[in-house]
Amino acid sequence: MNLKNSNHDLSGFDLYSYISNKNILINDALNKIINSSRDSSLLTRAMSYSLLSGGKRIRPVLCIAASEAVGGTEFDVLPAACALEMIHTYSLIHDDLPAMDNDTLRRGKPTCHVTFNEAAAILAGDALLTLAFQILSSIQTNNNAAKWLKVIHLVSLAAGYRGMIEGQMRDIASENSNISLKELEDIHSLKTGALIEASVESGAILGNGKLEQIEHLKIYAKNIGLAFQITDDLLNVKGDPAITGKAVGSDKTRNKKTYPALLGITGSENHAKKLITDALHTLETFDNKSNPLRAIALYIIERER
Amino acid sequence: MNLKNSNHDLSGFDLYSYISNKNILINDALNKIINSSRDSSLLTRAMSYSLLSGGKRIRPVLCIAASEAVGGTEFDVLPAACALEMIHTYSLIHDDLPAMDNDTLRRGKPTCHVTFNEAAAILAGDALLTLAFQILSSIQTNNNAAKWLKVIHLVSLAAGYRGMIEGQMRDIASENSNISLKELEDIHSLKTGALIEASVESGAILGNGKLEQIEHLKIYAKNIGLAFQITDDLLNVKGDPAITGKAVGSDKTRNKKTYPALLGITGSENHAKKLITDALHTLETFDNKSNPLRAIALYIIERER
Repeated sequence: MNLKNSNHDLSGFDLYSYISNKNILINDALNKIINSSRDSSLLTRAMSYSLLSGGKRIRPVLCIAASEAVGGTEFDVLPAACALEMIHTYSLIHDDLPAMDNDTLRRGKPTCHVTFNEAAAILAGDALLTLAFQILSSIQTNNNAAKWLKVIHLVSLAAGYRGMIEGQMRDIASENSNISLKELEDIHSLKTGALIEASVESGAILGNGKLEQIEHLKIYAKNIGLAFQITDDLLNVKGDPAITGKAVGSDKTRNKKTYPALLGITGSENHAKKLITDALHTLETFDNKSNPLRAIALYIIERER
Repeated sequence: MNLKNSNHDLSGFDLYSYISNKNILINDALNKIINSSRDSSLLTRAMSYSLLSGGKRIRPVLCIAASEAVGGTEFDVLPAACALEMIHTYSLIHDDLPAMDNDTLRRGKPTCHVTFNEAAAILAGDALLTLAFQILSSIQTNNNAAKWLKVIHLVSLAAGYRGMIEGQMRDIASENSNISLKELEDIHSLKTGALIEASVESGAILGNGKLEQIEHLKIYAKNIGLAFQITDDLLNVKGDPAITGKAVGSDKTRNKKTYPALLGITGSENHAKKLITDALHTLETFDNKSNPLRAIALYIIERER
C-alpha cells in the first residue's frame, strides 16, 4: 500500500532507526524497573518473561512520539510509556489463558501460562497491571501531580470495564456468532483502540500539548488504532508466521470474526487505507516534530508483523 | 478473649453501630460507582456480584477510622475506601479461581467463576483492580493531587508484586510443604497485612495526619493485620460455617499451613492477643477520636466471622 502525504516530506526520516532508538530507551527502562531487585521469584520471572519478550512497543513509542509532536521530550513521558507497555502485556497474558483465547504461542515464544503455570500467569498479569499504576504514581512532585493524576485517570478508563476489558469480554462472546461490521468495530475500538488513544493522549498531556492539539491527536489515535487492528487481522490471514510469530489462520480456526471475514481482503485493505489517510489529515496543522506520528501511521498499513 | 484497655473507656462506644453506619456509606458509594450506567453487561454483573455481596468492609472501615483518628472525616477518604474494597474483592475473585485455591463458596455464596464463568471472573477481577485506580484518580483538583498520587503509589505497592500478589504466590507454593512460623508470617504480612496497612496509612494521609501519627498508625495496622489472619485461621478450625460462610476445616483438607497447625489453638489465641495489646499500645498518644480503631482491634480477636 502506498500513501502519499503531500504536505510533509518524510523521505529524510528513518522510522526504523527512530523506533529502534526508542525501543532501546523503553526496554532499558522496563529492565531497570522489573530487575531492580535482582530477585528471582517465580512471580517476577513470569512478569519479566512476558514484559521483556520483545514486543513492538507500539504504545510506548506512540506516547513518546505524541509528546514530541507537541514539543515535549521522551523523558517527560517515560514512566507513562513503560506503564502502557505493562498494561498491554498484562492484557496479552490474561487473553492467552486457557479460559480465554487459549493461545500457546505469543511473540514467537510459548505463552506465559505454558512456560510457567496458570496461577503464575494470572498473578503475573495482575502484578503488571498494578505495577503500571505504581510507575504512573512514582513522580511525587507537587508541580506535576495534577497532570499525572489526569493520566492515571484516562489510562484506567481506557484499560477498564468500559474500555479494553469490555472489549475482550465482547471479543470472547463474539466467537462462533454472527456480528455486524459496527459490532466488530466497537469490539476493536474497546479492546485495542482505547489504550492506543490513551497512549497518544497521555503523551500529549505530559508533553504539555495545547487542548486543541490533544483533541487532534485523539482523532489521529482513533484512526490508526482501528487501522492497526485491521492489519492485525490481515496478517493472521496472509502473514508469514516466521515474521509474525503467530500461527496463520488461527482466527479462522476459532471462527473469530475479523475484517477479512466481513469485508474481504481488498475491502479490508481499502478500509485501513482510508483510516490512515484520515489520521494523516488530522496532523496537517502540526509541524515536522510530528513526522514520527506520520511515519507510524504509514508503517501500520505496510507492516509485516 | 478479654482485653482491658485501661487508658480509654470504650464502654460508651458501640462498634456495631459504627461499622453498620460506615457500611451503609461505603455500600451506597460502591453501588453508585458500579451501577451508575445501569448497563447489564456480563462483565459489570460479575463485578457487582462479587463487590456487592456483603463483605465485612474491614479495609474501608479502617481507612475511614484512621482518617477520623487524625481529625479527618469519612468524606476525605471515601474514594480511597471504595478503591481498597475493590482491590480486596478482585484479589478474592482471582484467589478463588480453579487455577489458584479453587474455592466454590465465598461470603456464603457461589464464587464468581461458579456463578458466571472463568473468563468472566478473571476479567471482572481485572476490571475491579483497574476501577480502583480510576476512582483513586477521580478527584482532579490541583490542591490535593499530590496527596492522592501518594495514596495511589502506596496502594499499588501494597497490592503489587512485592505485596499482596507475592503473598498469594507464596501461599499457593506453601501448600503441601513444611514452612516455618517466620515464613507463614511473611506470607500473611504480604497477602493480607500489606493492604490493611495501606488502608490505615491512606486514611491517615488523606485525613491530614501528622507524620508521627501516620507512623504510629502503620504499626497499629501491622499488628491488627496479623492478628486478623490468625483469627481467620482459627475460624477455619473452629468457626461456625453458618456464621463464617465458609466450610470448616477446608485449610486442613488442602494441607494449608495455618497458625493453629504451627502454634496450636491456644498458642494462636495468645499470639493474637499479644498483637492486639501491642496495637492498642501504639494508640496511647491518640485522643478519643481513635476509639473506633481501638474497638476494631478488640473486635478482631472476638469476631465470629
